[in-house]
Amino acid sequence: MNSSDPNIQDLFHLLRFPSISTDPQKSKEVEACAAWVCQYLSESGLTAELRDTDGYPVVIAKSDFDSTKKTVLIYGHYDVQPVDPVELWNHAPFEPEINEGIITARGATDNKGQFFSHMLAVRQQLKENGSLPVNVIFLIEGEEEIGSPHLAPFLETNKDELACDVILISDTGMIAPETPTFTYGLRGVACLEFTITGPDKDLHSGIFGGAVANPLSEISRLVASFHRPDGTVAVEGFYEDVLPLEQWERDAWAALPLHEQEFIDLSGSSELFGEPGYNAFERTFARPTVELNGLYGGYQGEGSKTVLPSKATAKISCRIVPNQTPNRVLELMQSHIRKHSPPHVRCDVTLEHSGDAYVVDPTAGFGKAARDALRTIRPGKEPAVIREGGSIPIVSDFKKILDADSLLLGLALPDCQIHSPNENFPIRNIELGGEINRAVLQAVAEVEN
Amino acid sequence: MNSSDPNIQDLFHLLRFPSISTDPQKSKEVEACAAWVCQYLSESGLTAELRDTDGYPVVIAKSDFDSTKKTVLIYGHYDVQPVDPVELWNHAPFEPEINEGIITARGATDNKGQFFSHMLAVRQQLKENGSLPVNVIFLIEGEEEIGSPHLAPFLETNKDELACDVILISDTGMIAPETPTFTYGLRGVACLEFTITGPDKDLHSGIFGGAVANPLSEISRLVASFHRPDGTVAVEGFYEDVLPLEQWERDAWAALPLHEQEFIDLSGSSELFGEPGYNAFERTFARPTVELNGLYGGYQGEGSKTVLPSKATAKISCRIVPNQTPNRVLELMQSHIRKHSPPHVRCDVTLEHSGDAYVVDPTAGFGKAARDALRTIRPGKEPAVIREGGSIPIVSDFKKILDADSLLLGLALPDCQIHSPNENFPIRNIELGGEINRAVLQAVAEVEN
Repeated sequence: MNSSDPNIQDLFHLLRFPSISTDPQKSKEVEACAAWVCQYLSESGLTAELRDTDGYPVVIAKSDFDSTKKTVLIYGHYDVQPVDPVELWNHAPFEPEINEGIITARGATDNKGQFFSHMLAVRQQLKENGSLPVNVIFLIEGEEEIGSPHLAPFLETNKDELACDVILISDTGMIAPETPTFTYGLRGVACLEFTITGPDKDLHSGIFGGAVANPLSEISRLVASFHRPDGTVAVEGFYEDVLPLEQWERDAWAALPLHEQEFIDLSGSSELFGEPGYNAFERTFARPTVELNGLYGGYQGEGSKTVLPSKATAKISCRIVPNQTPNRVLELMQSHIRKHSPPHVRCDVTLEHSGDAYVVDPTAGFGKAARDALRTIRPGKEPAVIREGGSIPIVSDFKKILDADSLLLGLALPDCQIHSPNENFPIRNIELGGEINRAVLQAVAEVEN
Repeated sequence: MNSSDPNIQDLFHLLRFPSISTDPQKSKEVEACAAWVCQYLSESGLTAELRDTDGYPVVIAKSDFDSTKKTVLIYGHYDVQPVDPVELWNHAPFEPEINEGIITARGATDNKGQFFSHMLAVRQQLKENGSLPVNVIFLIEGEEEIGSPHLAPFLETNKDELACDVILISDTGMIAPETPTFTYGLRGVACLEFTITGPDKDLHSGIFGGAVANPLSEISRLVASFHRPDGTVAVEGFYEDVLPLEQWERDAWAALPLHEQEFIDLSGSSELFGEPGYNAFERTFARPTVELNGLYGGYQGEGSKTVLPSKATAKISCRIVPNQTPNRVLELMQSHIRKHSPPHVRCDVTLEHSGDAYVVDPTAGFGKAARDALRTIRPGKEPAVIREGGSIPIVSDFKKILDADSLLLGLALPDCQIHSPNENFPIRNIELGGEINRAVLQAVAEVEN
């Protein structure tokens, strides 16, 4: 494909909508973008409609239903991140350009380019064959960049209509060019915070220092107790439910074109540090953490102020892995905090948001089908079969509400500049996305029940 | 004395100057106050003059010099704290009132009422006897409430002229009514801060968490290592120079009308916590501390943000006691920090302000003279002989520059509301201040060289 290809012109049309969901000034353009997506899918031979939510509409488009076929729900989002700092862009963010096969525009990768590749592949297949190997339901939402606040209620309300065997999502990474990548697991998250209160007001450290507890010292000792010096988590029972890494996973990740030095460079750290016995990828893909996100109390200005502060607060997120549950991890954390909180101060714990970890078995069922399908894309080259360390809440929602696994088949290369100026997407990855779509729909169709 | 007494009218005159040194709008009134003090001392029979500094003037007033007599420098400050929140005052802060023998006004205790009692006593003694048992130099400054920034340079410039045997200051507490109180020791202070840097930017805790060091965890472990769980300082060598408490001191403090429950109530803490083997007064008067004044890094807003922060900072003040020096304590702290800072993060230490601890021996020389003098004020009642936990930088300056000890003979009762609305001072304490002045000047005169 090149820039004169009508399909590229279609994608350019899609990219020209400044569909920034965080910006209330852009609400008309966000809605216009939804309407364009709906029309595109309708013109492709699907039954498409805009469905209202309490926020931006969801586009639902279905192929003709055949009860003998499996059903695949394809997820994407038509909203994009803001463009600031706009002065760092090489051209207007919503005026897409192509240079050496790379399309540059806000949303090129995240997520318009990626879901467009699936829309295009389905359109072409319907045009060529008049049918698909599976029933397809597109669900393209407009609030992903603001945390999909209305998606779960929408799924609840329409769960019978959206019933499916498996979900297909291209909104994750492809670890290197020409390397089809199957992200078969994600970490979940369990957040909490707690405040230690000593005196009921800030005190003069000369008059009182030494005779009453300092909440900063107490909170330091408490949060330091979460880890052993080697970086392992010391919270009792923390690892008990953790799904152990299998040898094939460690072998598969060791064979990937990923190197720890790149990880170090990307992080801007001088060296790695973490749980012994695991490399950086194993640690972030498949091991749980207790991470301090914020810690504060007392004086923060210039120079010194000899205050003995009243309060200190710690904000914590635990990344959890398959077989751990947020509730259990939060229970263990609270027990640890209670046990290590000394009697001479008060400790108040607040639970914050949480989300399940996720894994689909890539050696059986739809997981195996996806992996096998990717193997056909670049014959002789093993696809990347990885997990990722972050959390994607919609994947948990799909699992909980629709009881279906998600196949995360990302097309975003490491240098695609997602969320940054000059976001870009190679035309080649639109083609790869199409090949993946065809191969996976076919493979899903062939899975034995 | 009552409100019609001309001496009370003199004090009221002094209290009517809104001599707030922090408020540039009040500069004329501050200077007028200095002039009034100078004139009062001149009219008392002393050679008084206003001396320029780079800030507000210092009042210097001297009795006729007799080389056969000892010389006592009497320190005070004519500037006062701001009056906010003014709506909590029962009347205008600079319109003094008397109610049941208590004068209420800003500066009534801190420090106008206190140094006035010394001026009045000297005036009366000169009127009665035509001479004093010692040479007296009044030094009344106008910048105490802003940290006396120009006092040390003034002392340096005029150190021959200000040469004295001992210094007399009433700017500390009297622990209870009718209880002459000799504060013979103060803690010093040594401040520093340090920053732990891990990654060179804030990271996503999902993508990187578990594989690189978290500066908040590292700083917590480091600052937690300053103390043992029982509250003692764990920094190697920290206690090595500490002047041990003598049994007479513990006995004297145990006999005071001070109770730990009042200390707890005043602190607003639920209970005491500190170094085992010492009560609250022993801990704050005579034991050194490592106190966290501030600790911060990462997210501090509402709810959670799953960031792995780049930096974390701790601000620390050590209260030091006699025989410890700030430099040695800062060395020990830096060694501890270096030793406990792990190799996978960077640690940058900054030294902040410091001040010496102070003690004068109340069993010998001028200290014993002061103690003996106080014993004569309330015959049969032992005066309170205490130390205090805070630091008074001018006392160190006097020691360093004039090589003279300070006798801290405070007249401020615990309910005098220093720095607060409705600051007040009993007329009775003006009389007590006068008695103390006479007794101490006489006792100093009688000290054998």
